[in-house]
Amino acid sequence: MCEQDESVPCPRGGLCFADGCRRVDYVLVYHCKRRHSQSRHSIISNGNLPSLSPTPSRRNTQPELAEVELEAGLASGPGEGEKALIREEFERGLQEEGLEIERDKETVRFTRLHVPWSVLSREAELLKIKVPTKRVSFTQKTGLAGAISSLWEKLNQPFQPGVPEPQNPLSLFCMEYFLFSPHILHNLKIFFDVFSYNFVYLYFCVNLPLKVLEILRRTACTQTCQTMGITSLLAKGVYDSAFPLHDVSCIEMKWANYGVFFKYQPADLIRKYFGEKIGLYFAWLGVYTQLLIPASAMGIVVFLYGWLTVDTNVPSQEMCDERLNFTMCPLCDRVCDYWQLSSMCSTARASYLFDNHATVAFAIFMSLWAAVFLEHWKRRQRCLQHRWDLTDMEEEEVGTLFTTTHNLPIASESLTWKDRLPGYCVNVSSILLMVGVTFSAVFGVILYRIIVFAVMSMNPDHEAKANVRVTVTTTAVIINLLVVLVLDEIYGAVAVWITELEIPRTEAAFEEHLILKAFLLKSMNAFAPVFYVAFFKGRFAGRPGDYVYVFKDFRMEECAPAGCLIEVCIQLGMIMLGKQLIQNNVFEIAIPKLKKMYRTYKEEKEGGEKKKSKDPNRPRHRWDLDYELEPYEGLSPEYMEMIIQYGFVTLFVASFPLAPVFALLNNVIEIRLDAAKFVTEIRRPDAVRAKEIGIWYNILSGISKFAVITNAFVISFTSEFIPRMVYQYLYSDTGTMHGFTDHTLAYFNTSNFKPGTAPNSTRFDRELRICRYKDYRDPPWSPESYQLSKQYWSVLAARLAFVIFFQNLAMFLSMLVAWLIPDVPRSLKERVKREKVLLLDLLLSEEAEKQRQGCNSHCKT
Amino acid sequence: MCEQDESVPCPRGGLCFADGCRRVDYVLVYHCKRRHSQSRHSIISNGNLPSLSPTPSRRNTQPELAEVELEAGLASGPGEGEKALIREEFERGLQEEGLEIERDKETVRFTRLHVPWSVLSREAELLKIKVPTKRVSFTQKTGLAGAISSLWEKLNQPFQPGVPEPQNPLSLFCMEYFLFSPHILHNLKIFFDVFSYNFVYLYFCVNLPLKVLEILRRTACTQTCQTMGITSLLAKGVYDSAFPLHDVSCIEMKWANYGVFFKYQPADLIRKYFGEKIGLYFAWLGVYTQLLIPASAMGIVVFLYGWLTVDTNVPSQEMCDERLNFTMCPLCDRVCDYWQLSSMCSTARASYLFDNHATVAFAIFMSLWAAVFLEHWKRRQRCLQHRWDLTDMEEEEVGTLFTTTHNLPIASESLTWKDRLPGYCVNVSSILLMVGVTFSAVFGVILYRIIVFAVMSMNPDHEAKANVRVTVTTTAVIINLLVVLVLDEIYGAVAVWITELEIPRTEAAFEEHLILKAFLLKSMNAFAPVFYVAFFKGRFAGRPGDYVYVFKDFRMEECAPAGCLIEVCIQLGMIMLGKQLIQNNVFEIAIPKLKKMYRTYKEEKEGGEKKKSKDPNRPRHRWDLDYELEPYEGLSPEYMEMIIQYGFVTLFVASFPLAPVFALLNNVIEIRLDAAKFVTEIRRPDAVRAKEIGIWYNILSGISKFAVITNAFVISFTSEFIPRMVYQYLYSDTGTMHGFTDHTLAYFNTSNFKPGTAPNSTRFDRELRICRYKDYRDPPWSPESYQLSKQYWSVLAARLAFVIFFQNLAMFLSMLVAWLIPDVPRSLKERVKREKVLLLDLLLSEEAEKQRQGCNSHCKT
Repeated sequence: MCEQDESVPCPRGGLCFADGCRRVDYVLVYHCKRRHSQSRHSIISNGNLPSLSPTPSRRNTQPELAEVELEAGLASGPGEGEKALIREEFERGLQEEGLEIERDKETVRFTRLHVPWSVLSREAELLKIKVPTKRVSFTQKTGLAGAISSLWEKLNQPFQPGVPEPQNPLSLFCMEYFLFSPHILHNLKIFFDVFSYNFVYLYFCVNLPLKVLEILRRTACTQTCQTMGITSLLAKGVYDSAFPLHDVSCIEMKWANYGVFFKYQPADLIRKYFGEKIGLYFAWLGVYTQLLIPASAMGIVVFLYGWLTVDTNVPSQEMCDERLNFTMCPLCDRVCDYWQLSSMCSTARASYLFDNHATVAFAIFMSLWAAVFLEHWKRRQRCLQHRWDLTDMEEEEVGTLFTTTHNLPIASESLTWKDRLPGYCVNVSSILLMVGVTFSAVFGVILYRIIVFAVMSMNPDHEAKANVRVTVTTTAVIINLLVVLVLDEIYGAVAVWITELEIPRTEAAFEEHLILKAFLLKSMNAFAPVFYVAFFKGRFAGRPGDYVYVFKDFRMEECAPAGCLIEVCIQLGMIMLGKQLIQNNVFEIAIPKLKKMYRTYKEEKEGGEKKKSKDPNRPRHRWDLDYELEPYEGLSPEYMEMIIQYGFVTLFVASFPLAPVFALLNNVIEIRLDAAKFVTEIRRPDAVRAKEIGIWYNILSGISKFAVITNAFVISFTSEFIPRMVYQYLYSDTGTMHGFTDHTLAYFNTSNFKPGTAPNSTRFDRELRICRYKDYRDPPWSPESYQLSKQYWSVLAARLAFVIFFQNLAMFLSMLVAWLIPDVPRSLKERVKREKVLLLDLLLSEEAEKQRQGCNSHCKT
Repeated sequence: MCEQDESVPCPRGGLCFADGCRRVDYVLVYHCKRRHSQSRHSIISNGNLPSLSPTPSRRNTQPELAEVELEAGLASGPGEGEKALIREEFERGLQEEGLEIERDKETVRFTRLHVPWSVLSREAELLKIKVPTKRVSFTQKTGLAGAISSLWEKLNQPFQPGVPEPQNPLSLFCMEYFLFSPHILHNLKIFFDVFSYNFVYLYFCVNLPLKVLEILRRTACTQTCQTMGITSLLAKGVYDSAFPLHDVSCIEMKWANYGVFFKYQPADLIRKYFGEKIGLYFAWLGVYTQLLIPASAMGIVVFLYGWLTVDTNVPSQEMCDERLNFTMCPLCDRVCDYWQLSSMCSTARASYLFDNHATVAFAIFMSLWAAVFLEHWKRRQRCLQHRWDLTDMEEEEVGTLFTTTHNLPIASESLTWKDRLPGYCVNVSSILLMVGVTFSAVFGVILYRIIVFAVMSMNPDHEAKANVRVTVTTTAVIINLLVVLVLDEIYGAVAVWITELEIPRTEAAFEEHLILKAFLLKSMNAFAPVFYVAFFKGRFAGRPGDYVYVFKDFRMEECAPAGCLIEVCIQLGMIMLGKQLIQNNVFEIAIPKLKKMYRTYKEEKEGGEKKKSKDPNRPRHRWDLDYELEPYEGLSPEYMEMIIQYGFVTLFVASFPLAPVFALLNNVIEIRLDAAKFVTEIRRPDAVRAKEIGIWYNILSGISKFAVITNAFVISFTSEFIPRMVYQYLYSDTGTMHGFTDHTLAYFNTSNFKPGTAPNSTRFDRELRICRYKDYRDPPWSPESYQLSKQYWSVLAARLAFVIFFQNLAMFLSMLVAWLIPDVPRSLKERVKREKVLLLDLLLSEEAEKQRQGCNSHCKT
């Protein structure tokens, strides 16, 4: 019953027009209620009387004109009658463009669109679509290279997603210059023996939603509302929603499935289904996850190295050696007692796990890894660009921006700087305020730690005292984590709000500004506590007899004598793991589920009986199901989560080599979780073309550069690496590490305690003359007693020299890596070259053909 | 008498075929001598007997077949008779391609080529050439912006090159998709009222040599030599030379003229004349020179600041103050005497000119300047790419490479790594050798300085002694300069040689590798002496009583007590100025002149009588004149000179703020000098298309990044900035600089001289107990006497901290600048957008037109 031209097999039920032939390519939804409906729910009209459409409708599916706003509160847009007129005109415009339309008369109205073949070929011609090239035709290697590549292919086989190749793998070559006008299709038919429109249609399916969207965007309705395109109609509330339909069978099995977690993702399939932008995101996530594997392996090796060599490590042995008998000065005035260094033995050993020679090598490795990752992604992106025909695409700027709050198109271009000034001011002050909030939060947690530590230290119970540090650290980190999670959500909302106030010129600019602001706020939020522990904690604590106090009563906190690194490690590990676990489980699974349950519950309460009476009347169509899903809200949250994770993996990797392992474990799950979310939890997004991942690449590259600096500082200032090196090569008499602990401890004469600051009671029997503390200061018997010693300055110089050395080495190596790895893979280069030759040959032969056929005579007339 | 189709006015005499109609577009030259010529010069044939051509010639200008090699020594290529056959076939191939040919029968044979209209339009169709857009049509601003831009235009008017706009400024828009087939030209004629082939021809003139070259490159001669294209024929010696003709009237007046030195260069004219690659070079040189103006201005301001504040500077006042009476330790053992610090007064004052607070600000300014320069060039390049229709151009890799030494095509792709290994080994070892030579040269000059200084110090004449330092420094710098100049030439040759051994795959790769190697060697050569003075001189000199010696007798050299900066400054200034003056005058003007004179002299000696007898017979044609010029040998030397200069301007700008001034003065002359050279001294180069300046941009960017580091180190280690700051804020009691000189001088007890190292005789009457020397060491009365003091370590830490601070600040600011300045100017963005809209409109309306005309019916048949 279907025409020949439309001979595409329509997929199984629920996806077609009533004739069972024409596929539903797109759905427009509007929410309205006929006045004479049987709803018992009493709705009060807000004054919009039903009005008759002034334009006669030609179709049998004449829209109901008497419509009343369902949500009476929303009165900012045009009235309900007016909306109907706008819809009327808009849909007529679509029909004039050649689209075919089917409607129904339910409460929730669906206008279903179908794009016939003629429209498709016209659109394709305007956009110059390239036909996919058969893959095998250009990649035949011979000899050893061929054997290796075929072996590699075999080994890789189990990890391939197992998506079948296109059903008609004609040996087509790249046809950039061929447009899909009927004329060209005719020519193609001449060229190749086998050719069917079916094939072309199959190809077009890829971009179908995009094509429809193009038409929806440029269709104007000039009579009723002086606006253009679906975006503004959605903003005005004329339509409730507009989306293509899901068709998930294949993609769900091959991709959105935990059973295939070890396989590559089917990039082409994702791109066909969701469009290039989402395809690029998942491809990027895939590349990132894949490259986390070597980083994780190295991280585990480094960790094992620490584990295996901890017993041969002299400094931690010395700290555990009770015979050395270092009596340490009290850690606070009056209430604290002297203590034995050997009581910190376990911390020292744990510290060594993350603070050894291998960590330095690992930090340099990770700098290179970041460079390799960025380069590798560039190559992959380039390959995808070629494969997906994005090479010649230029970033198009969508003209006007419709912000969600204003609901009206803002002529953003007409704004002068005076109009923008308040927006900018609010922006700057909001960001400063948020920065202040973050720092206050960090400072609050510090205060909590200081106060609880002080209070618990006063507890006379010795058992409790021993666990003070662990208890305080753990509870503080948990508080920190909760603060981070809460502020994260708030900052996301604030970023949207201030970006809207700024009124950027285009949608692309809006997105970019939003991302930058959200990234600034969220990353600061996530990393500020770690930064504090790594670089500031214990630097301003003073020395025995001259401790620094906050609020007069509480001593500034200090790291354990084994160094701050272990605390950075705990802080980092807890925040990273906690954030991932909670965000994955609570924010990505539980909250959407709850939302959906709430909505279902609300709908049932509202229209329970009506629904029940309707259900048996008709089958639940795909569009009904899809409409119930959450709308798609952009990729930014997904990217942001991964980018912050990338920050955790790179910025402090010197203090926590296991970060890549945790990231890898998370991401393997994250990919499939995101996939399931995109396929089953949200409406199918419009296919958006995008050439690259955009601003995210810049952020990644910025993080990688910043990571070099932070790691340099972590190694030289947070870890004990430099003091150990300086001791071994500058001060040690034997050239070994023996005596290092003694060297790092300064002397304090207990008679120098200020009056009232000496310990009230002490477990130590004898009258102590000298206690030790961890610092480089001149001893009491030197002329410059308690001043920073020469050792302090030499170690400081060594630390700074190491920062310069490390930073420049890592930067140089990264640049070398970026330079050595070409941006375009050689295979792709050769492929492009051959395609060009083929194209030139074709053009020349076509020219000759034309000449022979005497076509010229026609042209001259 | 010319046909209608060829109605282009042929330029004035000497540029046309004998018919006076057809323009000579290209010239092929071969050098041969008829056996029966009247030459009295006896030539010995090397056995190539004259042979008859086996292929019958169809043309009346039948080539002479009895040909004998002129240069009998060259026997590597094919024989002379064979060459004639190859020429025969090749030129027949050209005629089949549609080119028109004229020959003459002189000793030096010229085959002149003309490209008729039909060939041009065919070629254009294959290459998709864009028609230039009229400039005014898109840049109309209104209101204040318009007023400002018109004012700016007026102010800029005197600096514009004054080249008239194209003669037919039709309001054409961008027609990327229009090919110049007759059909399209016809369509164009319909579109625009005024249209003439003349206009198209005028446009094509731009790319004419390129078009001819394309044909020359792809014409094969399969029968006689199994090779393809003019490149291989030139390599084989079948042709002597191939070049387009000069036509210099306009370009010489508007550009290659010292009278217009203050004007912008006529970029479009240069591009039309020389092609895009050379056009980009001069555009780059223009941008660089233009941006040197603000840098020079700032440099002068900084210098003046030093000049004006030198009298208020406390440290130099203290050094000049004889009342302070610092008696310094002798600078060498035995022969040297004690001396007064105040004798170094003038050096201290001179030092201050370049070593003050302003220098630090200037160094940061120059880092930003470099970033702005790179960004500005990117924008300019982007504009030129659009203007010159290079946007869609892809870098084409020329297949095979013909090296000049091998003279035979090398199938470079078929080489395995085994074949390449020896080449790589020679490469690495040569580069290492050259690095060794450079360091030896630097070390040699150091030795010269040490020895001469020692010898002259022993001179009993006090007058001579006073001038020792000046004399030694000056002569050493001159020797350095000469060494640099000589090695520069040698390294250029070595780079070519080792790159040829490497056999890169393509011509582009060859050029890139050559440039990288030449840059590595030449920059090392130029900068190594400066690096030595800035960072190593005086660091290993030891202290009084424990001086370090080389060759047992000669003390390691040391900088003056006012710091090494002034010596860096002298070294840098002398090498930079000397290099520019000598290279500009000797290498670019004198040597080519001498070469030409020598050649003329030789030719006259060889064929003096013949020439004289011939001259009256015929006029000197343009091709005769052009053939006498030097062949074009690439842009690399020009770029290299400027890049090394850029290195001088940026790398050590902290020590020599006047470097940009000297560079600016040089470049204003350099531009016109290069212009004159390209227009009158060398044959017109083939127009080569290039999208960007390629590897040079990367080198520039690398230098800019490296400059941040060198400047950080110069400020913190070479200059006295950090010690002054540390003294003022850490050690000074008053918070001022008073006492700084005293603080920097360590004490030496004269009784600690090792036996035999104390001065033999002294002008100082009293028995000195204590002398001073410039270092941070503990005094003799401290327990750690003569060890590096705490001050040393604290100053070192401050120096290193400053390096980190400066480097990261400069890098961050540079990145910020690069991020804030968009790569594509907004005006260009808007222009491209509007062009697109126009194009889409046109396409749509054309489509509609086609439908109306029922053209479709034809297509379906």
